Amino acid sequence: MALKAIRAGSRNETGIDTAKAQLAARFGDRFQTGEAIRAQHAHTTTYIPAQLPDGVVFPESADEVREIVAIAAANTVPLIPFGTGSSLEGHVNAPNGGISVDMMRMNRVFEVNAEDLDCRVEPGITREELNTYLRDTGLFFPIDPGANASIGGMASTRASGTNAVRYGTMKDNVLALTVVTADGREVRTAHRARKSSAGYDLTRLFVGAEGTLGIITSITLRLQGIPEVISGGVCPFPTIADACNAVILTIQSGIPVARIELLDALQMKACNNYSGLSYEQTPTLFVEFHGNSESVEMQSRHFDEIAADFGSSGFIWTTNPEERARLWKARHNAYWAQKSLIPGAAILSTDVCVPISRLADCVAATHEDIAAHGLTAPIVGHAGDGNFHVGLLFDDKDAADVARAEAFVERLNARALSMDGTCTGEHGIGQGKMPFLEAELGDALDLMRQVKRSLDPQGIFNPGKIFA
Amino acid sequence: MALKAIRAGSRNETGIDTAKAQLAARFGDRFQTGEAIRAQHAHTTTYIPAQLPDGVVFPESADEVREIVAIAAANTVPLIPFGTGSSLEGHVNAPNGGISVDMMRMNRVFEVNAEDLDCRVEPGITREELNTYLRDTGLFFPIDPGANASIGGMASTRASGTNAVRYGTMKDNVLALTVVTADGREVRTAHRARKSSAGYDLTRLFVGAEGTLGIITSITLRLQGIPEVISGGVCPFPTIADACNAVILTIQSGIPVARIELLDALQMKACNNYSGLSYEQTPTLFVEFHGNSESVEMQSRHFDEIAADFGSSGFIWTTNPEERARLWKARHNAYWAQKSLIPGAAILSTDVCVPISRLADCVAATHEDIAAHGLTAPIVGHAGDGNFHVGLLFDDKDAADVARAEAFVERLNARALSMDGTCTGEHGIGQGKMPFLEAELGDALDLMRQVKRSLDPQGIFNPGKIFA
Repeated sequence: MALKAIRAGSRNETGIDTAKAQLAARFGDRFQTGEAIRAQHAHTTTYIPAQLPDGVVFPESADEVREIVAIAAANTVPLIPFGTGSSLEGHVNAPNGGISVDMMRMNRVFEVNAEDLDCRVEPGITREELNTYLRDTGLFFPIDPGANASIGGMASTRASGTNAVRYGTMKDNVLALTVVTADGREVRTAHRARKSSAGYDLTRLFVGAEGTLGIITSITLRLQGIPEVISGGVCPFPTIADACNAVILTIQSGIPVARIELLDALQMKACNNYSGLSYEQTPTLFVEFHGNSESVEMQSRHFDEIAADFGSSGFIWTTNPEERARLWKARHNAYWAQKSLIPGAAILSTDVCVPISRLADCVAATHEDIAAHGLTAPIVGHAGDGNFHVGLLFDDKDAADVARAEAFVERLNARALSMDGTCTGEHGIGQGKMPFLEAELGDALDLMRQVKRSLDPQGIFNPGKIFA
Repeated sequence: MALKAIRAGSRNETGIDTAKAQLAARFGDRFQTGEAIRAQHAHTTTYIPAQLPDGVVFPESADEVREIVAIAAANTVPLIPFGTGSSLEGHVNAPNGGISVDMMRMNRVFEVNAEDLDCRVEPGITREELNTYLRDTGLFFPIDPGANASIGGMASTRASGTNAVRYGTMKDNVLALTVVTADGREVRTAHRARKSSAGYDLTRLFVGAEGTLGIITSITLRLQGIPEVISGGVCPFPTIADACNAVILTIQSGIPVARIELLDALQMKACNNYSGLSYEQTPTLFVEFHGNSESVEMQSRHFDEIAADFGSSGFIWTTNPEERARLWKARHNAYWAQKSLIPGAAILSTDVCVPISRLADCVAATHEDIAAHGLTAPIVGHAGDGNFHVGLLFDDKDAADVARAEAFVERLNARALSMDGTCTGEHGIGQGKMPFLEAELGDALDLMRQVKRSLDPQGIFNPGKIFA
């Protein structure tokens, strides 16, 4: 390979300077190097220190992305694709410097094919913008990771969230992509047919690749009909195990529950305080059903029976849309509710995912761990998928507290892996989960590295993420 | 790269001889070189001429697969993984010679995790064997490509079939794999969690790779609860367009139909003749609903209304299990029914898939094409996915008729691609669809080639398939 490649941890100062000059000449005001804007584009949650890019470029078309890639390749300079900056594991950091490629001006909807339940969009549109656009068509895009993330970012981190138990994750809802590859071509990974056996599944290779294999320039998405009726409510249980067992039986019974979220007692307390609610402060499921009036009634009746069998003191229904919105707003504000438990504390928000039969064990063992170490760490989970989040409150200015937080994350990941789980159900690897991915997949990482080298031989795309 | 690589179209005689001697010494009777067994392992449907391997080896464990790969790599000899031989596009041919690796002795079930609705099996188990094994658990594996294929072959071709409209394809139902890679390691692609954002999606890279990237040694599958109630029936329509429009509205309405199969008038005639039925010989949907008595009743009532709106003369129900089995047996025997239309004729069974809004157009244009060229070619489709099969009857001993058949396939694929479709919804590329994949994905093929070279630098795994 005659191309120069980026070495881990090294900054190519000459290349960066040349690329900056070329980008400034080509993009004018749409290339920025001020510290504030660079800091904003390295914004990262949790304890991972920010590593600023050397500049931020704002392309407005796939052709411009191709030009940017050509400049980066010619100068061996990293490119870090950027959406809304809501990723949690340091995905947008620039450990070797380089250029942040802010995709948010590429937010067009190219087409909506209502009969086929699909659409094609640019990566910079957010999920809320897309759903606003779609409203009149009677369709919606179901994936909801909480944050109003960009569709490109959601594809790149293989996002999912509350609705995944019914509608799947980004892997299941991206039909095709166009991607600008390291050689500066825009490549289409698939056509618009709902299924295909035509060659390697490049679509799903780029979904979840965290921008390390190319820059996504358009995304063909599956859509769903907006349900005629949505109903749901909250259902308190005596213990985490009871709540988890109710979830298992719900899934096993084939009830097509749209959302089934587990909040532990501390999270319920935080939500009550933060959102002015007065639910029982005990392990609770937030549940939602989609369908028509008949099917929703049938699903909820069936669920009610299951919940009662596991000692629930009764399901509190919210059929009223405003009440329902208030309930889910409380769920979506879980992060802010967590923060309110210790004013001024930082939050380390991390996720793991285990087979659902192990969810109760994993959460219970994590509770014991939290108690044994005197931590404050509410838990909220997408229980139908076996995926849960711990929001660990800590003092990010105190090295000892940071070390305690890191040690907790290590134990949490080791626990999930020991239960045949994964170190991340939906946040992705970024920088924060790199050691746990090594522990999880071992030799498979070599295959990932081989694929990375084959598609990005210089290593210009988001270096220092997923694997070293 | 110091390794020797296989050149397209060339036989490495010395390497093959050495590998044969080594395999004979190591595997004794489990390595066979007789012509009959080699011919059986190059069995291929349609007009693609058989290309026999030089020997067939029957491994019984992943460790033995590792040994076989080591021998092939040391001698630069092709390995062609083999299941039941039901693939349709020349997937198991040996254009450069080499060794067929018959996986059918590796047919164990390692574990069934009923609470998690998953299991882990070896690749040589067939879908019927697996479902027999699972029966007492109340679970089943839903993917049904028609043939009693091996699970490994189904994963390798990204198979789907009648149930895919509800349960997805192999891509959606394989949770994890172990694969022996070119360097002789057995690598696990994922853990058993239902979702993960942990690095590149190697699972879906190997699903559909047609044995060109490694040899699958175990497969973790999602399972489903056996539905309490199954009902269905047949529904005749005046025209293909009416039938397709009923399908579109069914899908758009969110009716979770389990099967919705389109048979054209000629296929209905063939099925009536072959299976002793007396249905109307007009475009017809075979439909099936899964659920409990309430939900199945609701789905079928809703579908009935839609069918009536599109001029159906009425839905003929079969709630009786024996009657239902007879109906679906007729559907599954579509291939043999096709053959019965012209005794002695060969069948070219090919598939394409288009967005469902284009299905009626694509089938109608194909009917015109068939009529204009005086062909006999019944059509049967997985209408809910926009996927359909043409069973073209022709005389495989007559060069002119073979040329006519090939020209028809070219027009069919061009038509599907012009409608944003794919050249194969479920059969795979093998040898037969290679030119159409090039037309479909263009530059993306270069990415596939780069991935292939990175994971199989010598080109030992099933060379001459998918792309040249």
